[in-house]
Amino acid sequence: MAKVAVILAGCGVFDGAEIHESVCTMLSLSQRGVDYQCFAPDVEQAHVINHLTGAEVDEKRNVLVEAARIARGEVKPLTELKVKDYDALIVPGGFGAAKNLSDFAFKGTELSLETEFHRVLESFADADKPVGLLCIAPVVAPLIYGQGVQLTIGCDAEVAAAVEELGGQHVEASVDQVVVDEANQLVTVPAYMLGPDIASVAKGIDALVAKVVELAAQ
Amino acid sequence: MAKVAVILAGCGVFDGAEIHESVCTMLSLSQRGVDYQCFAPDVEQAHVINHLTGAEVDEKRNVLVEAARIARGEVKPLTELKVKDYDALIVPGGFGAAKNLSDFAFKGTELSLETEFHRVLESFADADKPVGLLCIAPVVAPLIYGQGVQLTIGCDAEVAAAVEELGGQHVEASVDQVVVDEANQLVTVPAYMLGPDIASVAKGIDALVAKVVELAAQ
Repeated sequence: MAKVAVILAGCGVFDGAEIHESVCTMLSLSQRGVDYQCFAPDVEQAHVINHLTGAEVDEKRNVLVEAARIARGEVKPLTELKVKDYDALIVPGGFGAAKNLSDFAFKGTELSLETEFHRVLESFADADKPVGLLCIAPVVAPLIYGQGVQLTIGCDAEVAAAVEELGGQHVEASVDQVVVDEANQLVTVPAYMLGPDIASVAKGIDALVAKVVELAAQ
Repeated sequence: MAKVAVILAGCGVFDGAEIHESVCTMLSLSQRGVDYQCFAPDVEQAHVINHLTGAEVDEKRNVLVEAARIARGEVKPLTELKVKDYDALIVPGGFGAAKNLSDFAFKGTELSLETEFHRVLESFADADKPVGLLCIAPVVAPLIYGQGVQLTIGCDAEVAAAVEELGGQHVEASVDQVVVDEANQLVTVPAYMLGPDIASVAKGIDALVAKVVELAAQ
């Protein structure tokens, strides 16, 4: 049975990992009897957002420490993630993927990736091991897989245009549809880029997990 | 179709609402097409725990503001929860239920309840509307329902003894079993009091949600 690494970008949709997406990913893996291990970069969050008001607050939080809330303490620093130990990788969305794992939220198509996140994505790509990216996380894929990589971020015109500018091929999808780039072993799903509710999001994530586990078994 | 209020005690198992339990509750409600609204008390957390190390840290966080992370911003202050607007109430566990909604974690059987939480529980009990309590949250039930109320916190001997000392009748249950006190319209499930994994916990929570929704429809 596959062993899957899950990368969390903090804890909370507006400045970290989207909590529902992270939990639904773990739930689907657990329901399939698949072992998983959570990882997060040991870096300061880009900023902290009050999730009640949407305002940025004058506070510092660490991505790894906050990710531990979702992982019930069971999370390791991303530096410890070695591709040889895992059959697949899944990255939930939330703004953390675009603020802490990359800076897409601030720099758009001029984005760069957090150092360890870049290393891990490159190593899974080099090893031809399957990767699942949820929600906004797929915007990083063109930097790893290059021209023509197929992915979805749902149907947001602005983000889709950015993906195309970066060299990706954006494929529109509904919340319960995954887009599979077989050549690159990349699976993407819109999740809360579309929503609207957790049941719909969970259905799409379950489909992504099923496909990632299937690819890992091949 | 029933409308259900969900009370969140923060965001994170060691100082707030258990995240998996909260999300699995929302997921089960959403999958059943049941409307829900999250609430949390607008009070300071009892303390803040670093979930990576388990250590208490010198920081202040607000229960409502942190609960907004789980609720994606869609959470209201507990003062706004009126029993007439809802058919049922569900309270996920995590130490927040024993630190922020009550002080059971600090005072054991000398516990008292957060003012608004007490008011809400009393009002649902007085209205004979169903209440679901997960994990450690059921320890508060004897203060509301009085002598002989049947509930489970799994099989922890120390907590079960506290429940009995408070006048409750503790019923052992496995992680996927709910305990139903029909007379009091109270449904309880062990969740992460037993674990061990999210799939097992989700199964028990789904059974609790099913029973609460069934009672609400009667």
